Amino acid sequence: MTEVTTPRVAIIGAGAVGRGWATVAVAQGWGVTLFDATTAVAEDARAEVVERVRRLRRMGLAQDGDAKTGLGAFHTGRSLLHAVTDADWIIDAGSDDLGQRQRSLEQVEQVDRRAAVITSSSNRHHASQLCARLRRPERLLCVNPLPPMEFMPVVEVVPGPLTDPACVEAVRFWLRRLGRSPIVLHREVPGNLSGRLAAAVWRECIHLVLEGVIAVDDLDRAFSAGPAVAWSAAGPLLEQYLAAGERDLNLHISDLLGAYEEWWTSLSRRERLDADEQHRLVRALEKAYHARLPTLRVEREQRLAALVHPARKS
Amino acid sequence: MTEVTTPRVAIIGAGAVGRGWATVAVAQGWGVTLFDATTAVAEDARAEVVERVRRLRRMGLAQDGDAKTGLGAFHTGRSLLHAVTDADWIIDAGSDDLGQRQRSLEQVEQVDRRAAVITSSSNRHHASQLCARLRRPERLLCVNPLPPMEFMPVVEVVPGPLTDPACVEAVRFWLRRLGRSPIVLHREVPGNLSGRLAAAVWRECIHLVLEGVIAVDDLDRAFSAGPAVAWSAAGPLLEQYLAAGERDLNLHISDLLGAYEEWWTSLSRRERLDADEQHRLVRALEKAYHARLPTLRVEREQRLAALVHPARKS
Repeated sequence: MTEVTTPRVAIIGAGAVGRGWATVAVAQGWGVTLFDATTAVAEDARAEVVERVRRLRRMGLAQDGDAKTGLGAFHTGRSLLHAVTDADWIIDAGSDDLGQRQRSLEQVEQVDRRAAVITSSSNRHHASQLCARLRRPERLLCVNPLPPMEFMPVVEVVPGPLTDPACVEAVRFWLRRLGRSPIVLHREVPGNLSGRLAAAVWRECIHLVLEGVIAVDDLDRAFSAGPAVAWSAAGPLLEQYLAAGERDLNLHISDLLGAYEEWWTSLSRRERLDADEQHRLVRALEKAYHARLPTLRVEREQRLAALVHPARKS
Repeated sequence: MTEVTTPRVAIIGAGAVGRGWATVAVAQGWGVTLFDATTAVAEDARAEVVERVRRLRRMGLAQDGDAKTGLGAFHTGRSLLHAVTDADWIIDAGSDDLGQRQRSLEQVEQVDRRAAVITSSSNRHHASQLCARLRRPERLLCVNPLPPMEFMPVVEVVPGPLTDPACVEAVRFWLRRLGRSPIVLHREVPGNLSGRLAAAVWRECIHLVLEGVIAVDDLDRAFSAGPAVAWSAAGPLLEQYLAAGERDLNLHISDLLGAYEEWWTSLSRRERLDADEQHRLVRALEKAYHARLPTLRVEREQRLAALVHPARKS
């Protein structure tokens, strides 16, 4: 399958995730057909993707020639059949409803090419669940990008127990050609890597806010200018490997665990938020940010664009 | 106390933390006396700080005039008395042993000026513990920087229950003059903010490595080029506030919690690592990084230096 160097791409679902995939593939000059059951959504998505590709070109993150080729070969599908019939790579970016996605994938299989590889972008469902209605489940794997995809090179690749390793290799090859940095998980786990890390971080952050230890905006500012910068320069495990310096690594890790084990016992154990806690959290978020919303959005995008250049070197 | 615009600084303890403080204060042109009970350590620290300040100047992160003034007014203390006798701001950066620090602070109080403010840099002990032997505990608060301090503007400020608010204000004022971004915690909690976040992140990371879900270097790469970049651009709470877009924030947070609550139940609950797990972790770290150690160290420093420019705008 890896013989296909430049796959024809079909994207099913024109929500945020489908738009991200379309942006990245079109910017690379690949032929992309985007399909959504709601035509108005597909048309709106088309306009947004065109604008995002042009922006990447202005920022020097897409080649002029590639972007021009890609924009010329970017279509919305008139039907599912029309979208997937020629595709080498079918990207399922549908709703979060498991049953709907299983039925949609079943329909895809009725009209696609046998040689096509199917990837599902979902951090809520695994390939082993999504393939339930497929006759050839070995062609399916999960591939989860982070938003906004054009600035976030990391993509989690999670094969199911039935996935053909050749399909995994084909997808990794295509992802690298798209400038992505594929990371393979050896096993399906709830939330995959990024979801679990976000859940662990959020649990502790909202605990500290709800307990009155720190204000929402102070916490965000401390996190974004502190640990997040350190972990952008080196992941949390490498950071401590380097922090050991010339000391014996065993001793360094022992000391570190001495502190962590003390703190682990006091970290939040929350497994849910009750209605009152959720209300207090939403109110605290509104209070911290509501008045500055438009500015904050622009500042975040500017910072992301500035950060992505050093980050892409990794 | 805030009448002192440019405090004379005494730093007690010439380990990594004391060296960080000295670098930042000297680069700002302030008079600094660094004291360590072991003279050889103080002299080694002096040479390192001079080199770090020169590097900041070369990088354009310190003004030529300030650095020159600071280097001219940078001394090692011949004795504790000599170090603290004139100081407006005494920075305790001693060992992690609580008893030792309490005795050291008691000695400081016997020779310092009554008007001096004392800050302790420790994420293991709180002001309420460190002040045990002080006659005037209201002058003491905890102030925790992140290493390497010259590239990490965030500093956690944690007053104890007895701390005089005027001392907190004086320290915040000085920190801002040093180009720091002080974040005040309203209460002492084990590990403060950065320690708790690191502990939460490490717990999940080592869990996924020990369970064989992902390789050490894949995890670090995914984290540093993925969530860490996103959280550098906007902290985790602001990120979701912005992600809500034009949707009702309550609905967005409800959906988000729906996913997180599912994952929270499956996150690591480890409260300690047994000897075998620690051994496996150290072996996995060695296997991933040992051969590339010198390169990795240089790459991290380069990335940190590149990241600090956009990050400092926050």
